[in-house]
Amino acid sequence: MHIRRTSVHNTWDNAIPPIATIAPGDELTVETADASGGQLGPDSDTAAVAALDFGRVNPVTGPFRVDGAEPGDALVIDVLGMETGEWGWTASIPGFGLLAEDFPDPHLRISKISGGTAELLPGLAVPVLPMIGTIGVAPPEPGGHSIVPPRRWGGNMDVRHIGPGARLILPVGVEGALLSLGDAHAAMGDGEVCGTGIETEATVRLRVDVRRGGAPVTPIIETAPAAQRTGAALATTGIGPDLMEAAKDATRALVTEVAVRAGIAPADAYLLASVAADLKISEVVDVPNWIVSAHLSLDHLS
Amino acid sequence: MHIRRTSVHNTWDNAIPPIATIAPGDELTVETADASGGQLGPDSDTAAVAALDFGRVNPVTGPFRVDGAEPGDALVIDVLGMETGEWGWTASIPGFGLLAEDFPDPHLRISKISGGTAELLPGLAVPVLPMIGTIGVAPPEPGGHSIVPPRRWGGNMDVRHIGPGARLILPVGVEGALLSLGDAHAAMGDGEVCGTGIETEATVRLRVDVRRGGAPVTPIIETAPAAQRTGAALATTGIGPDLMEAAKDATRALVTEVAVRAGIAPADAYLLASVAADLKISEVVDVPNWIVSAHLSLDHLS
Repeated sequence: MHIRRTSVHNTWDNAIPPIATIAPGDELTVETADASGGQLGPDSDTAAVAALDFGRVNPVTGPFRVDGAEPGDALVIDVLGMETGEWGWTASIPGFGLLAEDFPDPHLRISKISGGTAELLPGLAVPVLPMIGTIGVAPPEPGGHSIVPPRRWGGNMDVRHIGPGARLILPVGVEGALLSLGDAHAAMGDGEVCGTGIETEATVRLRVDVRRGGAPVTPIIETAPAAQRTGAALATTGIGPDLMEAAKDATRALVTEVAVRAGIAPADAYLLASVAADLKISEVVDVPNWIVSAHLSLDHLS
Repeated sequence: MHIRRTSVHNTWDNAIPPIATIAPGDELTVETADASGGQLGPDSDTAAVAALDFGRVNPVTGPFRVDGAEPGDALVIDVLGMETGEWGWTASIPGFGLLAEDFPDPHLRISKISGGTAELLPGLAVPVLPMIGTIGVAPPEPGGHSIVPPRRWGGNMDVRHIGPGARLILPVGVEGALLSLGDAHAAMGDGEVCGTGIETEATVRLRVDVRRGGAPVTPIIETAPAAQRTGAALATTGIGPDLMEAAKDATRALVTEVAVRAGIAPADAYLLASVAADLKISEVVDVPNWIVSAHLSLDHLS
């Protein structure tokens, strides 16, 4: 089964009728639109970012009805493969992102994607590690629910490990599950600090199965080796009693350090952090101060 | 210069006289005590955990006066090598740790360390990735400061990447810097969720240099490739508007899942998570719900 990216919705609502029904164990190929829903193109500039219509963002393809899936079951989704588009966009959008107060102006970079890398800045390419930003099932609560926040039922999780070779286990909330997906990224760092990855169209191959009972409390992922990063990294820290402030401080320190070491603008360092740096909770027990660290491969600084 | 683990203190205080003076660029070998300060031994049981005297925990060897280091300078510390002891301890201590409310009773495991692994549970060994839990300089603020929380000046950072091959850059707060270190771990996961790693004595080789000016706002680390983890992992998620609650939820889900999959007690799964699982901030921008994920290598579940 091959589903085009024209059958999309951008609100979670269990009243949206399914576009197709699949049987447990079926494989399907799903085209996904980019997170702007076609509002940005390879020639867009920052004016287009400022003019984004948020009512049209983050379209997901679906929903797919999974025959026999019942509330309390688990949906087991294997990501068999992903192809990205030939370009992607990364933006700092006013009012959105971890450091929104530091970066009030819109900023946009278009990456050319080819040969396993995406060129975010001239001469600065990041490895392509494709992933599905938004994948989830319909919530049992009636009515429309914003596509932006993730929930127990998945959705806009932006977990960079949900890519080829990974298995995702979602709880089923309604009869037939009603699975949808979209918002592919060619690359993203843990945290997605500026609010976007390298946003791109994609074609995703999935196998969808049902496990009777055993719905997890929240989504569980079995990650693929290829989704890990290796190598030496620059790690900055944020230290204090609030994890959010520590995350901001670690990211600020990384942006400052990377801008100096790589000789790039802070706004570009912020985008680079979003698509290639990883936020880790280093310790959360040494009362009353926790540490969040932000890690960027030294390959990007040489 | 070789310093024994008998010259220790366990409060940060810039009035503590230095035990030695080194010149910028000097290499030194430092023995460190285990985090219990000798209160636990290879034959200890949970009663010893319940009886721990917290006034004696986390001793650090030092302080070392670095000739010429001035406030505003950066101390550049290269970790040249580490040898751990032949055993280590990992405990859940009542009232301490991320899931203190879930695990009210003391729990202790002694690991034999040899051949590059540490056997946390019978038949369940984790790779030895040695690291320095506590390393810092004296704060400029007068008086005694608890050894437990990390601060701008470093200290009990518990960042698992501060191990052999890594470079640590600390701000200097007082004339001579007054560097101390201790609290070695044979292994630890990002987050150190139960509050302890595989706690062990160690012998650490360092090179200490001074960079004029350029003190970082908070510590910066250049990590070593060997400190990264690779391979496929089980990742659980915590989703919600508070990072601490999300961290707890992700850890609870990992403990539950690992206990079932590996057939071990939840209290042991909690210790295993603390020494081998990594807490990552997966996304912190999809308002209003953030995701923390907890990752454990699938190697521990087969």
